[in-house]
Amino acid sequence: MTERITDRVNGDRIAADIAALAERTRHDQPGFTRLAYSEEDRQARAWLRDRMEAAGLTVRLDAAANVIGRHPGASEGTVLAVGSHIDTVPNGGRFDGMAGVTAGLEIARVLSEAGRHLRHPLEVIAFTNEEPNAFGLSTVGSRAMAGKLTAPRARELRDPDGRTLAEAIDFLGGEAAHLDEARRSRGAIAHYLELHIEQGPVLDREQIPVGVVTGIAAPTRLRVRVDGRPDHAGTTPMGLRKDALAGAAEIVLALERIATEAGESVGTVGRLVNQPNHANVVPGHVEMTLEFRSIFPERIAALRARFLEAMPEIAQRRGLEASWEFLMEERPLQIPPKTVELAAAVCRGLGIPFRPLPSGASHDANHIAEIAPVSMLFVPSVGGRSHCPEELTHTADLAAGTRALLGVLVRLDETL
Amino acid sequence: MTERITDRVNGDRIAADIAALAERTRHDQPGFTRLAYSEEDRQARAWLRDRMEAAGLTVRLDAAANVIGRHPGASEGTVLAVGSHIDTVPNGGRFDGMAGVTAGLEIARVLSEAGRHLRHPLEVIAFTNEEPNAFGLSTVGSRAMAGKLTAPRARELRDPDGRTLAEAIDFLGGEAAHLDEARRSRGAIAHYLELHIEQGPVLDREQIPVGVVTGIAAPTRLRVRVDGRPDHAGTTPMGLRKDALAGAAEIVLALERIATEAGESVGTVGRLVNQPNHANVVPGHVEMTLEFRSIFPERIAALRARFLEAMPEIAQRRGLEASWEFLMEERPLQIPPKTVELAAAVCRGLGIPFRPLPSGASHDANHIAEIAPVSMLFVPSVGGRSHCPEELTHTADLAAGTRALLGVLVRLDETL
Repeated sequence: MTERITDRVNGDRIAADIAALAERTRHDQPGFTRLAYSEEDRQARAWLRDRMEAAGLTVRLDAAANVIGRHPGASEGTVLAVGSHIDTVPNGGRFDGMAGVTAGLEIARVLSEAGRHLRHPLEVIAFTNEEPNAFGLSTVGSRAMAGKLTAPRARELRDPDGRTLAEAIDFLGGEAAHLDEARRSRGAIAHYLELHIEQGPVLDREQIPVGVVTGIAAPTRLRVRVDGRPDHAGTTPMGLRKDALAGAAEIVLALERIATEAGESVGTVGRLVNQPNHANVVPGHVEMTLEFRSIFPERIAALRARFLEAMPEIAQRRGLEASWEFLMEERPLQIPPKTVELAAAVCRGLGIPFRPLPSGASHDANHIAEIAPVSMLFVPSVGGRSHCPEELTHTADLAAGTRALLGVLVRLDETL
Repeated sequence: MTERITDRVNGDRIAADIAALAERTRHDQPGFTRLAYSEEDRQARAWLRDRMEAAGLTVRLDAAANVIGRHPGASEGTVLAVGSHIDTVPNGGRFDGMAGVTAGLEIARVLSEAGRHLRHPLEVIAFTNEEPNAFGLSTVGSRAMAGKLTAPRARELRDPDGRTLAEAIDFLGGEAAHLDEARRSRGAIAHYLELHIEQGPVLDREQIPVGVVTGIAAPTRLRVRVDGRPDHAGTTPMGLRKDALAGAAEIVLALERIATEAGESVGTVGRLVNQPNHANVVPGHVEMTLEFRSIFPERIAALRARFLEAMPEIAQRRGLEASWEFLMEERPLQIPPKTVELAAAVCRGLGIPFRPLPSGASHDANHIAEIAPVSMLFVPSVGGRSHCPEELTHTADLAAGTRALLGVLVRLDETL
């Protein structure tokens, strides 16, 4: 009865772990702040190791300071892994990352209490530093595990205080000098599963507890500069202006329209700085950072082409200069349909309402996908809020997601 | 031969005065900075008093520290006045204000050298502090002369260093405690004429040396706030967003369109601040300061009505909240057609190419208009540039403008 074990998942224990982690944040700031490599991070990781051991896991740190708790399998060999991260953005919330780590903890407890061993060894992983850090990087632990962060690079990157990323990793108990040892070879992990909060409004709006992730959208990010001419706002006739802000406004609306028309894509001008930014001066210069995302490479290509056609057209018509540089052009990750169908079948079997859903945000799973098959489950974010103190996932949804996660794990264990 | 005296105007002397004033600015900053009430302002005013006396004027300071040089008339009584200001914006230019003051100086020299006295006494005025100051006010001297700045108010207003406006006025040699004495009664000034640089591109573009000002546009200024909802730029589908920046972009373009369609009007969003202004966050809040101007009250009213209809429509359609407050709603000043025609006739008679032109910027003349008839002449600003180090009016144009100014003065003297 594979379904039976999932009934042992206890949402209250997950909620208690979430609350214990929430206490291990800065008390001098609003919201929940546990920046990677901080004293709070170190204390939360010590707490996590204790909880992992209490859940029957054997805990080790790899060279990247990823916290790895292992539950032995009936046979040794390739492992099944679940995980996420416990670092936060500044003034963030209690669930982003923590949902997946505490779900993994609960699964370990359930297996240990039931005296159950999967065929594969199970690893519960808390990846080091998923969020953007002061060294200009993010997803440090999963990047290292995928072999994409070298020891020399970690010694090169410095935060504004002059600390190197290597020193920061060592502060957490890692061994940055041997960062290569954190790398897992292709085939070492049979499958990586990540439970994460949606960080968007879809599941909450539809009151569905579980999202089966169909792919992870990749951001294409540009810095755009629009140059016009600063002029006196009273004395310069409308027809003689080169208003950089009016041009930028057209670009903002063009991106919105093109992304909407592309379908299953998003496009956002998140950052706009106007200059000289005085009430009585026609704006002369605008700088924007904008991005678009989709899980479909062909839509990204079409969106990119249309936008790069629209922008110079707007500038030329207005006598402005538009220039841009690509800051980021990542490739989306598509989850194979049969993997999505496996998770869907598990949810159906457990009677858990679900829906397929793309992930608009990147996750540790993006890197792990380069060395192993991955899948992700989402649980709702109330109001779509994330990276803020109001970030909330109801305990019942955390429990439903964890049951689905365990169900998928058991099914994979049987089939892989 | 009224025209003959105008031939004595010497552009080189005006250029030399402009250069002497340009030296009396801060040397530790780019461009030309002579903020009102600064040591540079005091030194330039001392120089100006000397130059006025050398030009045959009797100089006094009124209670607002306006520098007033008087050339006696054949009969005493109501005066004709010309003037402008010598304070600058930070990192400004050499001509804004100075053009009118040095033109007045040259006219005094011409009259004195010719042994000529007008029927009316002539006053050449350098108004105290026309530009926006650190006390949150502008046009201080002309405001006081119009009786709109009281001694208690001058004691109330403080700059960020805690100095009161009253202390600042006294620093220049004024008597802020008796500010009411600066007030001129209606009828005391028969006519006030101001020569000023255009600060816009029209005359330079058309290569016309003199603009006869038909009216002074009044700014209506609003602070607008657009509130949406900050959301994750990757995870929030286009249809579920409340993007404050996209709404603000529509407002920017609506104001541009409405002002263009209104004709002989301008509309500008000069200041826009986006929040939280991160690349991967849908903008939640935008604050803008915007304004529109015209010299025609009916166009201002129509523009105002259309814009205040468009803004809530945009916000409502997008699920945003738009709120606004009026920071300024001034009344435009229209120069009577017969006054415009008088100046035009003078230019025609002197063979000086001219065109009628509205003033998009406010000037000291706005306040003086409340106590006396006023008129203004413009000289070209190369490239329309103003309030910047590149601000330039060619000497030949300064001379042509000054000849026109003297011609109008003589004609007014005969007819009033």
